[in-house]
Amino acid sequence: MGDPGLFKLQFAPFSSALDVGFWHELTQKKLNEYRLDEAPKDIKGYYYNGDSAGLPARLTLEFSAFDMSAPTPAHCCPAVGTLYNTNTLESFKTADKKLLLEQAANEIWESIKSGAALENPVLLNKFLLLTFADLKKYHFYYWFCYPALCLPESIPLIQGPVGLDQRFSSKQIQALERAYDDLCQTEGVTALPYFLIKYDDNMVRVSLLKHYSDFFQGQRIKSSSFQSVEVLCFRDRTMQGARDIAHSIIFEVKLPEMAFSPDCPKAVGWEKNQKGGMGPRMVNLSECMDPKRLAESSVDLNLKLMCWRLVPTLDLEKVVSVKCLLLGAGTLGCNVARTLMGWGVRHVTFVDNAKISYSNPVRQPLYEFEDCLGGGKPKALAAADRLQKIFPGVNARGFNMSIPMPGHPVNFSNITLEQARKDVEQLEQLIESHDVIFLLMDTRESRWLPAVIAASKRKLVINAALGFDTFVVMRHGLKKPKQQGAGDLCPNHSVASADLLGSSLFANIPGYKLGCYFCNDVVAPGDSTRDRTLDQQCTVSRPGLAMIAGALAVELMVSVLQHPEGGYAIASSSDDRMNEPPTSLGLVPHQVLDQYEREGFNFLAKVFNSSQSFLEDLTGLTLLHQETQAAEIWDMSDDETI
Amino acid sequence: MGDPGLFKLQFAPFSSALDVGFWHELTQKKLNEYRLDEAPKDIKGYYYNGDSAGLPARLTLEFSAFDMSAPTPAHCCPAVGTLYNTNTLESFKTADKKLLLEQAANEIWESIKSGAALENPVLLNKFLLLTFADLKKYHFYYWFCYPALCLPESIPLIQGPVGLDQRFSSKQIQALERAYDDLCQTEGVTALPYFLIKYDDNMVRVSLLKHYSDFFQGQRIKSSSFQSVEVLCFRDRTMQGARDIAHSIIFEVKLPEMAFSPDCPKAVGWEKNQKGGMGPRMVNLSECMDPKRLAESSVDLNLKLMCWRLVPTLDLEKVVSVKCLLLGAGTLGCNVARTLMGWGVRHVTFVDNAKISYSNPVRQPLYEFEDCLGGGKPKALAAADRLQKIFPGVNARGFNMSIPMPGHPVNFSNITLEQARKDVEQLEQLIESHDVIFLLMDTRESRWLPAVIAASKRKLVINAALGFDTFVVMRHGLKKPKQQGAGDLCPNHSVASADLLGSSLFANIPGYKLGCYFCNDVVAPGDSTRDRTLDQQCTVSRPGLAMIAGALAVELMVSVLQHPEGGYAIASSSDDRMNEPPTSLGLVPHQVLDQYEREGFNFLAKVFNSSQSFLEDLTGLTLLHQETQAAEIWDMSDDETI
Repeated sequence: MGDPGLFKLQFAPFSSALDVGFWHELTQKKLNEYRLDEAPKDIKGYYYNGDSAGLPARLTLEFSAFDMSAPTPAHCCPAVGTLYNTNTLESFKTADKKLLLEQAANEIWESIKSGAALENPVLLNKFLLLTFADLKKYHFYYWFCYPALCLPESIPLIQGPVGLDQRFSSKQIQALERAYDDLCQTEGVTALPYFLIKYDDNMVRVSLLKHYSDFFQGQRIKSSSFQSVEVLCFRDRTMQGARDIAHSIIFEVKLPEMAFSPDCPKAVGWEKNQKGGMGPRMVNLSECMDPKRLAESSVDLNLKLMCWRLVPTLDLEKVVSVKCLLLGAGTLGCNVARTLMGWGVRHVTFVDNAKISYSNPVRQPLYEFEDCLGGGKPKALAAADRLQKIFPGVNARGFNMSIPMPGHPVNFSNITLEQARKDVEQLEQLIESHDVIFLLMDTRESRWLPAVIAASKRKLVINAALGFDTFVVMRHGLKKPKQQGAGDLCPNHSVASADLLGSSLFANIPGYKLGCYFCNDVVAPGDSTRDRTLDQQCTVSRPGLAMIAGALAVELMVSVLQHPEGGYAIASSSDDRMNEPPTSLGLVPHQVLDQYEREGFNFLAKVFNSSQSFLEDLTGLTLLHQETQAAEIWDMSDDETI
Repeated sequence: MGDPGLFKLQFAPFSSALDVGFWHELTQKKLNEYRLDEAPKDIKGYYYNGDSAGLPARLTLEFSAFDMSAPTPAHCCPAVGTLYNTNTLESFKTADKKLLLEQAANEIWESIKSGAALENPVLLNKFLLLTFADLKKYHFYYWFCYPALCLPESIPLIQGPVGLDQRFSSKQIQALERAYDDLCQTEGVTALPYFLIKYDDNMVRVSLLKHYSDFFQGQRIKSSSFQSVEVLCFRDRTMQGARDIAHSIIFEVKLPEMAFSPDCPKAVGWEKNQKGGMGPRMVNLSECMDPKRLAESSVDLNLKLMCWRLVPTLDLEKVVSVKCLLLGAGTLGCNVARTLMGWGVRHVTFVDNAKISYSNPVRQPLYEFEDCLGGGKPKALAAADRLQKIFPGVNARGFNMSIPMPGHPVNFSNITLEQARKDVEQLEQLIESHDVIFLLMDTRESRWLPAVIAASKRKLVINAALGFDTFVVMRHGLKKPKQQGAGDLCPNHSVASADLLGSSLFANIPGYKLGCYFCNDVVAPGDSTRDRTLDQQCTVSRPGLAMIAGALAVELMVSVLQHPEGGYAIASSSDDRMNEPPTSLGLVPHQVLDQYEREGFNFLAKVFNSSQSFLEDLTGLTLLHQETQAAEIWDMSDDETI
């Protein structure tokens, strides 16, 4: 590495060569491991003595820099460094670089004095790296330092520098190659940063620094009585398949007559920036990264930042990996999808049978005016397309299909029974292949079938519905897993009933005892669209409401997913919405579930084609109505007697 | 209008010709006036007797149909009708058309019997229109009926029908033209639906039906003793500039020998549909409307539906016409803009100086992946573009500019004092030209300058800010209008202080006594960005939060705008957030306001370039800190004596 001056020994400083892989790895470490930890980190670089002439001496750091046990690349020499990665640009700017350099120089000095450097000369290859990673912009700021101890006086050259081939015969050069290779092989490395050499016309020997005494003992040492030392700057190049060390440089220096002071000499080594001034260097990786990967990393970043300090226990993977089925791609569906994107959810599927109309885009934030032209694109497909446009890393699909509904007959009008059967099968498959089912439709009865299927398949259901200035956001109870070998009997019906008898009205309610959207209803779902005036349709709500409900629905899902028991998480009774007596929860759908699991589509077809009374008979609502009516009559007679 | 059969009198029914303008006007009436009112409405149509041969007889309804005093188009005859517009498709389908027809026929019959039809023959031109307007899809369903009374026996033709030119000499035809025109002129109309005619070889006379007795008195009446009557089907065509009534038809019918029964005869008249069957007609206007106008109407629809039943007192115009300035086009800005669009706000202006980065689109719902490429588009401009894409009717603009901030010096670094002066002027102009200012930035100190300017200009300020799982949405107090001639002294300082002394801590607080974002702070705004780690930046929040806060900010604005006193509306003390003692509200900014109004930019430049202590000195916070410290010391000494 010596680049000789005219008469005095001078050093060519290392140029830092920080690979893109290094910055990526730093990004990952910072995000997932260091987070807010600013403590110095051990890192590792390497340099190569076989570069073509004219190239600066480079100290390279790549993705492996953070793995201290990673092998050094072939024919390269390792360098050990310390990374100071700051949390803020401000502390990067105000870091005490003088102090850092002094500390590093002192460590080198101590390793020389103690002999540790002889034992492990890599200690001399020490470097510092001060960084600030702006992970939002993919801008990386850094200072690199390769400390060089400044001896109190300059070192005069006695001889040289000359090329090795001017001093050594080709036989000697070959002997050096052999000796060097043998030593490397013995040491199990492919390059040695430092080694001892002794030679005469007939032989060349090399050895490790730590064998100094033995190696030179009884030998005639070139250069008289340690007043001077001959230095070989070993270069080991391969050009066009042929090895070449002949261009190594050799020279002789006069050793300084310094008193062995215990104090560390002054040191220099902070690298100048690209402009040649004393300032930090900056790398802008956003320009050279694949924009789509950049988008993915950036989205992850915001999420991971939550884990650094605010919610260290947040299990992001549980959220990001969840597969969400959105039934309804209207006002609620669009807002739920947007919030899921914000949470980094990668798998979103829409189901809707409507087309985008002109009033939609201002309230349904996945659509634009263009989508309304020519009769309007199908919502489910357009919504999936839009998610891809927002974030190419998402896996979004859309199914333009109807959900069969109670009281909406399927065996006449336009929809055939066969189509309904296919729709049910499709819906069953979709629910099966997703983890969380969002009910975001604009009618009550369209929520019925998916609620039943999802309950049967033990999927988490999140339900949101809008009024004018009210809304419901709820999770459905998650039934306990089916008992093996218990036949077709729905296990929850009896179990839940028994459990509920013993539970206090205001006790915390476990997830499997929670009900569904229809549990508190006293009217079974039927066709609610037949006789609605325009202003009774669900889009007549305060415009801000869908955003609030959509956002809360996703936040509810995230909270449930974070619970160790997931969908079985206990509903806190401190929540006002839970002050309903739990005995009325969780009972109604079980008869339905039982029938669905036993009879499948035949049962469903009956529901679609029948009047409300079919479901009301099945679930006992008819009985309830009769009893209520009886009670009312009783009350009236009671009044009359007064 | 007679279309003679071979031997018997037959009538060609009117074809309904419902103009696009009619449906548009019906839409407006339904939205703004009728709403849920299903009561029958008087409407008006007309027909023309000058069409070219081969065209069906059309009864036209256009936009003017709802204005009973609107003039009938030249040379057209009026028809009066009744509109039955139903609220639902279901009641349209189940309407009792037989009954409606019977009622109308009976009215005609009664007007004949009473002689009212002689007095005003337009009563005979009666029609019915039964409609259902699906304003969401711009589909209009209708049944049209022109009631025709069915006489108990058929009416034989005695003579004719022949063209008028076969019966009249050209001299007679000219005489008829003159007589008709004279009668029209006398009556002040350009056409007569019915008139009497008598003629001989030398003269033609015409008169109104009501003059029947006088007109025919002492005249030789053509056709003997009322057993028959000659009928002229008058056609009044202009072809190639020349008038032509010669193709009118004339024939003679034998009058039926019916007993004058008091009962109304049977009637027919419901029009067949386009397929020739007995079913309703449907017009799909969405296809022929300008898509942009269609989008505007559709957006209005959802809003107007709110006024029908849910909030009849809602003054939409106050919301739709408000001009909103959004300072910040990030997570909050995008969500606020989306909600404003939902409320039909037409004037939205963005200010931001950032570019769209890869992490933005999943949380900032006005941007997409494409917007991030090449370093990213400026947010303010991209946001405005997106609003136009969502809804072409919006007036959206973006200003890519910085907002000068306290503690962010302007007289060195990249930003020159001159640029800051321009930025301040620009901001002042923008605030001046808008009604509501939204503070949606990601730092505390960037809210300072617009808060001061907006307070000085008495603009309503809505402020939203996010934490990780907390947020603030508030309105700033709206200072009372400046007193004329009171000089530069800020009137509120003294007034408010005095007022506040007398007010209870928990009384309702009038809008002019409310404070601003900085009022409760004990630290003046300074540079908060200098030393923030990545996870301390504002985007590290639960992803659903910005949607909730953005939506609430707009709903708050709407609620304030709906209050009769607007920004001076009282803040309800039942709201938990208002349980702060009001004496601490409204005091801090007044000194600042006073200085700003007196010194303008010179004062601002001092604020930008000074450390926090400048503002803290000015507003008395320094004193507060000192007093607090003194109090703390006192407390400590107090403890020590125990």
